[in-house]
Amino acid sequence: MTSSNQAGQSDSSTPLNDRPIGVFDSGIGGLTVVAALRRRLPSEHLIYLGDTARVPYGTKSAASVNRYALESALFLLNRQVKLIVVACNTVSAVALPRLRNLLSVPLIGVVEPGVAAALRSTHGGAIGIIGTPSTVASGAYQSRLSAANPALSVLAKACPLLVPMAEEGRLDGKLVDLTLREYLGGLKRASIDTLILGCTHYPLFKPAIAKFLGASISLVDSAETTAEQVESILLRESLLRTHGPGGIKVFVTDAPRRFNLTARRFYGSSIGAVRKVTLGD
Amino acid sequence: MTSSNQAGQSDSSTPLNDRPIGVFDSGIGGLTVVAALRRRLPSEHLIYLGDTARVPYGTKSAASVNRYALESALFLLNRQVKLIVVACNTVSAVALPRLRNLLSVPLIGVVEPGVAAALRSTHGGAIGIIGTPSTVASGAYQSRLSAANPALSVLAKACPLLVPMAEEGRLDGKLVDLTLREYLGGLKRASIDTLILGCTHYPLFKPAIAKFLGASISLVDSAETTAEQVESILLRESLLRTHGPGGIKVFVTDAPRRFNLTARRFYGSSIGAVRKVTLGD
Repeated sequence: MTSSNQAGQSDSSTPLNDRPIGVFDSGIGGLTVVAALRRRLPSEHLIYLGDTARVPYGTKSAASVNRYALESALFLLNRQVKLIVVACNTVSAVALPRLRNLLSVPLIGVVEPGVAAALRSTHGGAIGIIGTPSTVASGAYQSRLSAANPALSVLAKACPLLVPMAEEGRLDGKLVDLTLREYLGGLKRASIDTLILGCTHYPLFKPAIAKFLGASISLVDSAETTAEQVESILLRESLLRTHGPGGIKVFVTDAPRRFNLTARRFYGSSIGAVRKVTLGD
Repeated sequence: MTSSNQAGQSDSSTPLNDRPIGVFDSGIGGLTVVAALRRRLPSEHLIYLGDTARVPYGTKSAASVNRYALESALFLLNRQVKLIVVACNTVSAVALPRLRNLLSVPLIGVVEPGVAAALRSTHGGAIGIIGTPSTVASGAYQSRLSAANPALSVLAKACPLLVPMAEEGRLDGKLVDLTLREYLGGLKRASIDTLILGCTHYPLFKPAIAKFLGASISLVDSAETTAEQVESILLRESLLRTHGPGGIKVFVTDAPRRFNLTARRFYGSSIGAVRKVTLGD
């Protein structure tokens, strides 16, 4: 518990590498990235912020997503984070370039790691992407994949019902199977060899997606690759914390109790105390 | 267009009965109530506010819903409305008593009109209610029905996937049929004779719900009854506008163009210009 309390209590006198890593998301899905960071970098302190008062972002305009993202980043910077992970595909796809222009702290999104992982996984065939309507409409995945290898076939499909299904805890069964058949049927017929799960909620559907697509198609989620990229940037910048166990502090903008109850599904174990804060509004 | 422009331009010198009626909702569903008001009270000016930047409310905490509702009401009061219609079941169920305590303007929600309509429709059997998780958890419908007639059987079921489905424009087909079978199977087996559509999105599913439940079960949506109640209060308070055609002004907090494109499905015809405003945050 001591290490947990330390996570958010750095100030400007704390040595840079002892400061926490900030992670933010529109809601709860980013905890899959937090779990990967915890496994790879157990000495790091983490601060997580989920904007549950305004979730979902995937159907909001770019202007609103940009505003919400900046408010979340400033909340974390006020807590002296040394690096920010944007653990939300919609924000990574829509708002990351602007955030990087405005802020000097290192910022890592989940789109670039997902693209890197997909390029390693594909056998030169077709790559599929599923995401929220905003992520797919941004073209962020499609343009990076095509730039890396213009010979690739790239197919993207928006799946607006998967986030509400995941938040309802409905991860398998007839309704999920039928929904996946509708959303993924075209990708299956196009013989993709790799599917990017372009939303932090989607790893929860891995078993159901694998059942529909078959074992030969690789499912890429960016959580592990994002944690790898965080490690390499911390190493490069001499910001790694190498001693002692790291703690985690969790903040949300609405309904901390409900968040706590659902968190285990995304994080794998109990997340500890969840505090409510107000952003912007 | 002249009458349309007049709708939001009353000031403190405008005679009370020439002032607009304010209507607010978490998003777009409240337009079904606006359509009913327009048919019943064609001389009234209307101002609609949809909080599309923070939609949906049905999975947010009561504290957040209360705060958002007060901000929406104050926005309308700044435009000199003579009466406010809370065209959102979640806000009506969760926040209306507090709004009535705080504000002196007449406030009409959609729960009480829905309850009145259901009591007229039932043959003394069982009444079903479907709504968002927040509406169902509030018990607002259940307690009013049981208070009016303690002998009634009342069954409520939360249907979290129906709002995202309606917003996606998915109103029929296999996925909708399967979802309705899951949500409504228990209500059908309980032999309800009346079903309250306790969310302004749900009237769009009337054909699919009627197909599943059969023609003998009455579907109650509160839009018409709410318009009736608005008329009787305006009459009682001598606030009715009786001359000339009324106009309508529409404001949203995010994505006015997308709102405009979807509006026809809820309103029945084109809604005209949609303006973006910022509330609270």
